[in-house]
Amino acid sequence: MIGYKIHNLACELWGINRSITGEGVRRTLEHIKGQYLPSLNIKSVSSGTKVFDWIVPKEWRVNQAYIITPQGNKICDFSINNLHLVGYSKPFHGKMKLVELQKYLYSLPAQPKAIPYITSYYEERWGFCLTQEQRDSLNDGEYEVVIDSELFTGNLNYGELILQGQSNKEVFLSTYICHPSMANNELSGPTVVTYLAKWLSELPTRYYTYRFIYVPETIGSISYLSKNYKKMKKNVIAGFNVSCVGDERSYSYVPSRNGKTISDQVAKHVLKWIDPNYISYSWLDRGSDERQYCAPGIDLPIASILRTKYGKYPEYHTSLDNLDKVVTPKGLEGGYCALRRALEILEKNRTYKVNILCEPQMGRRGLYSTLSRKKSDPETRLMMNFISFCDGEHSLLDIAEKINIPAWRLYEIIDQLVSHDLILQI
Amino acid sequence: MIGYKIHNLACELWGINRSITGEGVRRTLEHIKGQYLPSLNIKSVSSGTKVFDWIVPKEWRVNQAYIITPQGNKICDFSINNLHLVGYSKPFHGKMKLVELQKYLYSLPAQPKAIPYITSYYEERWGFCLTQEQRDSLNDGEYEVVIDSELFTGNLNYGELILQGQSNKEVFLSTYICHPSMANNELSGPTVVTYLAKWLSELPTRYYTYRFIYVPETIGSISYLSKNYKKMKKNVIAGFNVSCVGDERSYSYVPSRNGKTISDQVAKHVLKWIDPNYISYSWLDRGSDERQYCAPGIDLPIASILRTKYGKYPEYHTSLDNLDKVVTPKGLEGGYCALRRALEILEKNRTYKVNILCEPQMGRRGLYSTLSRKKSDPETRLMMNFISFCDGEHSLLDIAEKINIPAWRLYEIIDQLVSHDLILQI
Amino acid sequence: MIGYKIHNLACELWGINRSITGEGVRRTLEHIKGQYLPSLNIKSVSSGTKVFDWIVPKEWRVNQAYIITPQGNKICDFSINNLHLVGYSKPFHGKMKLVELQKYLYSLPAQPKAIPYITSYYEERWGFCLTQEQRDSLNDGEYEVVIDSELFTGNLNYGELILQGQSNKEVFLSTYICHPSMANNELSGPTVVTYLAKWLSELPTRYYTYRFIYVPETIGSISYLSKNYKKMKKNVIAGFNVSCVGDERSYSYVPSRNGKTISDQVAKHVLKWIDPNYISYSWLDRGSDERQYCAPGIDLPIASILRTKYGKYPEYHTSLDNLDKVVTPKGLEGGYCALRRALEILEKNRTYKVNILCEPQMGRRGLYSTLSRKKSDPETRLMMNFISFCDGEHSLLDIAEKINIPAWRLYEIIDQLVSHDLILQI
Repeated sequence: MIGYKIHNLACELWGINRSITGEGVRRTLEHIKGQYLPSLNIKSVSSGTKVFDWIVPKEWRVNQAYIITPQGNKICDFSINNLHLVGYSKPFHGKMKLVELQKYLYSLPAQPKAIPYITSYYEERWGFCLTQEQRDSLNDGEYEVVIDSELFTGNLNYGELILQGQSNKEVFLSTYICHPSMANNELSGPTVVTYLAKWLSELPTRYYTYRFIYVPETIGSISYLSKNYKKMKKNVIAGFNVSCVGDERSYSYVPSRNGKTISDQVAKHVLKWIDPNYISYSWLDRGSDERQYCAPGIDLPIASILRTKYGKYPEYHTSLDNLDKVVTPKGLEGGYCALRRALEILEKNRTYKVNILCEPQMGRRGLYSTLSRKKSDPETRLMMNFISFCDGEHSLLDIAEKINIPAWRLYEIIDQLVSHDLILQI
Repeated sequence: MIGYKIHNLACELWGINRSITGEGVRRTLEHIKGQYLPSLNIKSVSSGTKVFDWIVPKEWRVNQAYIITPQGNKICDFSINNLHLVGYSKPFHGKMKLVELQKYLYSLPAQPKAIPYITSYYEERWGFCLTQEQRDSLNDGEYEVVIDSELFTGNLNYGELILQGQSNKEVFLSTYICHPSMANNELSGPTVVTYLAKWLSELPTRYYTYRFIYVPETIGSISYLSKNYKKMKKNVIAGFNVSCVGDERSYSYVPSRNGKTISDQVAKHVLKWIDPNYISYSWLDRGSDERQYCAPGIDLPIASILRTKYGKYPEYHTSLDNLDKVVTPKGLEGGYCALRRALEILEKNRTYKVNILCEPQMGRRGLYSTLSRKKSDPETRLMMNFISFCDGEHSLLDIAEKINIPAWRLYEIIDQLVSHDLILQI
Repeated sequence: MIGYKIHNLACELWGINRSITGEGVRRTLEHIKGQYLPSLNIKSVSSGTKVFDWIVPKEWRVNQAYIITPQGNKICDFSINNLHLVGYSKPFHGKMKLVELQKYLYSLPAQPKAIPYITSYYEERWGFCLTQEQRDSLNDGEYEVVIDSELFTGNLNYGELILQGQSNKEVFLSTYICHPSMANNELSGPTVVTYLAKWLSELPTRYYTYRFIYVPETIGSISYLSKNYKKMKKNVIAGFNVSCVGDERSYSYVPSRNGKTISDQVAKHVLKWIDPNYISYSWLDRGSDERQYCAPGIDLPIASILRTKYGKYPEYHTSLDNLDKVVTPKGLEGGYCALRRALEILEKNRTYKVNILCEPQMGRRGLYSTLSRKKSDPETRLMMNFISFCDGEHSLLDIAEKINIPAWRLYEIIDQLVSHDLILQI
């Protein structure tokens, strides 16, 4: 089961301290390149580079970070859980009373066993995150705070993999690698994308060219677009932002801004047949890099196929979003299969025209029962229904929607009809 | 009541052994031509003629067919019920044990009193159909099978009637004459069409030209189209395939492949007002000659108005589909009236433009109450509503839909407004 | 509260005997011009003038009208309630028995305390209206009927106010002044329109030009259109017929004939947010001057925003439609605010385009929280949603509909974004 393989990869990447810049991003990309996708290109953009309205921020490095309690215990130790440190915390070393320290602590009263995930990318701050239970157990007295971090001119990194197809028209997949140890809202994305890229790279032929990127969210996609959007606007015909594809609780869809692109059509088609109860969100519920890909003037046809969406499950952005209870091999496999179904449909979504006028005589081709009874068999009926829409105006997906069956039920029928010279791809 | 007349005609045609070719088709057409529609043309296509993807089959003649039981009784006698013989059975004469004979027998365990209707047009077979009750009563022993039939190079026949109108644009009605003694799924079609043709042929003027054909299903419509489709594509603006219009249980609609042609609009309008509970099928439920008329590249605007659709009633394709319990004068009259309403709307479906700006002063024309009270009367309101849409852009049918009344409620109003010179047909 | 001011104006106009022509119309217009809108133009069209299909009727003057009972009591006295006299009653003086008089009396058995409102504009009649209770109390005997009225060649009057804006494109508001002492179905219209005109005339700038007219219903709007429709067809981009905007029971909408004009969109948007239970009528429910404004060939984009629609409340067209129980300050204020919201949206309904590619960096502009937590705050989210649709293709109203918020929630956001140079009006 491929879900186990994907889950293994997620475990391999779990402990790395990813952020929007820094060593954690590079280590993540290098691991994927080294073990799974040798053709992955790891690229960099220098701190300070202007990317549209934004500036690539400094690189962040954490050597150590912790707090010493009045009793001499080390708590909030970054080396034990990287969520303890507010992301992008500036260096700090000092002593302070608990009442003062409290201003720098973040916890979740409603989820007393969860360490929250907090960042401060665009204003220099420091802080620690801890469970409410631990916070409540702190005693008065003097605490020593140690944050041995650096913010320095360095690079923002991302990974890019392009698989050339017969056509220069592209299908685009984007995922993000900027959260530390979290599972559904981080590792499910790059791990599923990696296995999709592996599958596509091993296909004997591809119609479309595939562009995969692994970027830090927001600043990464903006940086990438600032370099590539003109070419992408010209070539990208469909794509998905891949995030939160690892739990078992639901399937979900976030539309592109346009809402009617082929990516949207395919996503809704696949999800309808995989899970009729899938949750259909609106553009107003967006929250990942589709915000950039679909921004006015960029306008790429990017939708999202997800399991349980960011912000819609209780463990989101906490230490509880883990690889045990939230993200599972079965959940990852579901996310992988949904996206793979979608990519397969895009590959095969051509338009066909029947070669003859009126219905073909299927009987003499062995495609039809020769004995007329009360009912025709369902396979024959499906084939005749398909042919009836092969008018050169309906795509495979259009026809699947008209006949109300999964598009993949038609692949074999198409092969049969093409081999009998009854339909022609146009 | 015209239903009785139509039912009488059905009784006259009941006993004839129709099939897709042969004497039964000719006798049926000759009877209609002789007694009802002298202008009907009876045409023929030779066996072996290529018609699109098909070949016109051999002509089939049955002299006699029966089985002699071990006790010496004659059963499954074709001369008593033509459903006993599998349609297109090849000649056979021989003796066999019951166990062997069983391979050639067809019955319906779930309908033990029904003789099923079975054919084998495109592979040479033989067989007998009988009730399950009769089959269960057969004893072991030797049976003698006699099928004195012939399959020979002959003709496929069909009837064609063209009623010229002011316009060369055509309304097309097709019905089939290829089933032996069955009522709803055979005789209701040609009998209702015959009375529609009689009515139209007797009208003092017709706007459209009407093309009626009586064809064997599938091979007949394909043969007809192969000769006529170019002209029909140019001229046919609407039409209906007429089948299963004789029982009382329901009204139904099968769309054209396009689903939005004027034929579809008219059919849905008429049925909605005749029976708000009419059954609206999808193109996927099709099963008669609309399969050919709407095939890609043919694309004629042909929908179906039916009573209870083929395949949707228990007596379908059995000896129980008869002129006693299934098809009735009342049922036939309903089918006739629905189709006649549809044809009337097509004839009258023009676009009108009001001759003056703002509302006309109806009072001085005697078309409006002169005393203003709390409520205006419904007839006046209907007239004003109609006028409000006479903008040269809405057809009669469009307006009837907008006002939510049957189109036929507007015929008199249109006459009044035209006679007062308030609206102009454009 | 502006509702009280509007109600006061209604009280000032209450006692005037308005009809489609005559002194009552002039006095009403002069009062509005004198006290509220000095720029109002009072115009006249002579009796006998042909206006499209209609003739401007004679002017009607009533000096006195009453009935003397056999007991010598004066009843149905026009000077006490102008509804007692059938509108446009011709002069009459005579004596008659009760049985004869009954032919000229109108009352409402189902509303025994209401005097009905009856007119006979286009056929010369006379008659009296009274409560059913009073009618039932009449005794046999001889009655004297006195109607000292005149129908003479005079004028039809109407008021017109044009407020020039930056653009010559116009927003048009029409209301009627032809009913005697009735409140919702008469005075609510001209009083609300007067206060809307005051508000607009006092604005420092206006984008659109505003055209207000106060006309007798039907003949007035037809007369006005016959003079002005060509210019109006060229310039009017939106507008409302204002009627029945004074009670508290409901909000309602009557579409334009087209149903999809900007006026319709704005009306539905405003009403949805003011009262989700507002009643949406169809064009078939129309009954006021939209009949003329939307007639074929006129086709102005005029919809109606109402409180409880004419014909849909029990006091309609009776003496019970008064300024005490039916029309209230609160009711009028609701009508005023709904229309003002609609006009404000029209003024502001421009299209915007974001100035930069991808999302702007809101943080450094102080428009966004710099600390990323689990949820973004709703105001920020609203702003980002708005920006996401600033693609130069969606108007303010389109975006409000997409985001599903009242358009007026966006005014401040637009000001902020424009001042930060993030969006551009196109």
